[in-house]
Parts: sequence; structure tokens; C-alpha cells
Amino acid sequence: MAEASLATLDAPPASKERLRLWIRLLRVSRIVENEVQARLKREFETTLPRFDVMAALNRAPDGMLMSDLSRYLLVSNGNVTGIVDRLVKDGHVARTRRDGDRRTSIVTLTERGAETFRTMAAAHEGWIDDLLGDVGEPDARRLSTMLKTFRSNWEDEH
Amino acid sequence: MAEASLATLDAPPASKERLRLWIRLLRVSRIVENEVQARLKREFETTLPRFDVMAALNRAPDGMLMSDLSRYLLVSNGNVTGIVDRLVKDGHVARTRRDGDRRTSIVTLTERGAETFRTMAAAHEGWIDDLLGDVGEPDARRLSTMLKTFRSNWEDEH
Repeated sequence: MAEASLATLDAPPASKERLRLWIRLLRVSRIVENEVQARLKREFETTLPRFDVMAALNRAPDGMLMSDLSRYLLVSNGNVTGIVDRLVKDGHVARTRRDGDRRTSIVTLTERGAETFRTMAAAHEGWIDDLLGDVGEPDARRLSTMLKTFRSNWEDEH
Repeated sequence: MAEASLATLDAPPASKERLRLWIRLLRVSRIVENEVQARLKREFETTLPRFDVMAALNRAPDGMLMSDLSRYLLVSNGNVTGIVDRLVKDGHVARTRRDGDRRTSIVTLTERGAETFRTMAAAHEGWIDDLLGDVGEPDARRLSTMLKTFRSNWEDEH
């Protein structure tokens, strides 16, 4: 125990600064996420995972494999299956079999799903603009670039 | 629908830049969070919510009310109750009644909980240093400051 505490105290300032950054980043993303979840529920009776699936499919007009969808959204295959089932039931998403492959299905937004998504996406952009309104455009751009840099590093490594 | 699409296209660049920032921020925090969750499970057989509760209690030697804990962690009271129940069962956390109040309990880390937390916190700091290692100290400091600014704005308003 004593070793662990000493190691923490002796850690170089950079590691403390990164820890502080991580704690703030997580906190900011939870605050905004909670607010977005609440508004999606209130205004569209939907959830953030469902919105995320629709956003991913909206960027892929030819549809996506379930495995790609799960990898893209950083959630387990099992979780994506439940979300997609619900979207199919609501008529927002369609599953089609891939040619010559009975087990693999491709998931696409239906026309109705795409329309609903456009309405939600416009509202969502407004909420984010409201919630992040104190971040000026130059700061937003700079922060984005920094986040993109270390994100692409992880995506190579992990 | 056409209006919504046009509104999106016509939105000023600042709102697009903020949306991009939010998408990256959320993605980065999910990647790191997933990795931290996996390591907490593998190395300490625990979860991020349990670690978060212990971290909050570690900063409050006199303990916290359940309602404060829930507010601080940005999760619902019901969720915190389940997490605390588990930590009590493991001997890491103790509940004590507040003087003269039979319904309100104060939650504290036990000595064993504090020891376990110190070990986990040292490992956690190392993981974050590893995962965020590409962010130099000046950038980490700058990003932190930006995030702190807009976080405190929200916490006043929301």
C-alpha cells in the first residue's frame, strides 16, 4: 500500500495533468450525455443508443453489417441487437439478408427512419449548440483537432 | 422535413464545429471508458461505477449523504443505492445513521475500502497516463482548462 501511495505522489506532473484532463473530459461528456438523453426521451420518446444507431446508418446509405455497427459504436454485439430489434419494430430500420449468405444481415434505415432521423438530428444540433454555446468557434476547432489526434492514435493501437 | 434539412445546412459554422467537438469528445470518452472498465474488471474484479463511488468517498473523509453522492456522480439515486449495497457487502463502504435522523444515512469508505482504493487509484493513474500518453503536458493543461470553463458554466445553469 505504502508503495502505491508513494508511487502516486512521486508520479511526474504530466501523469497528474493527464488524469485531471481525463476526469474533466468524462465529467463534461456525462453532463452533456445526460442532458441529451433527457431531451431525446422528452421530445422524441427515444434513447441515445437508438439515436446513435440511426446516426451511424444515416452515414451508410448501403447499410451496415451488425458487426461493423457494433464496432463503430463501441458497444457489444448483444447490445446492438436489442437496439436494432426495437428500431425494426418501430419501422425505422430494416434488416436484409446478404446475397448468398443466410446468416449475415445488413441493416439500413428505412425511408421513415431517415425522415425521423433528420428531424431529430436538427434538434440535436441545436441542443449541442446550446449546451456547448460558451465554446467559441476557434476553441471548438482547436479542441476537436486535439481530440481527433489522440483518438486516431488509439484507434491504430487498440 | 425539408425545413429541418435546410436548417441543418444553413446552420452557422460555429454550431457545426460544436457538434463535431461533441461527437469527438463523446467518442474519446467512450474509448477510454471502455478500456478502463475492461482493466478494472480484469485486474480488480470491479466496475467503473463502483470505482467512481469509492473515488468520491475517498475525497470526503467525513462521508457523504446518498443524495450528494448521486448528484456528484450524475447518476440516479436508485443506481447509487445498488452500487453502495454491493460495496457494503464487500466491506469497502459503511453506512451510518445521521444523529437524530433515522432515515438519512451517511456513507463512508471503511479502512479496507480506502486501502483497496489507493491500490486501484495508482493503477488507474498509470492506465490513463498510458491511454492519454500522446497528449503532452501543455496540451493536457490547456484542454483541461477549456473543459473546466464550460463545465462550470453548465453547473451554474443546469
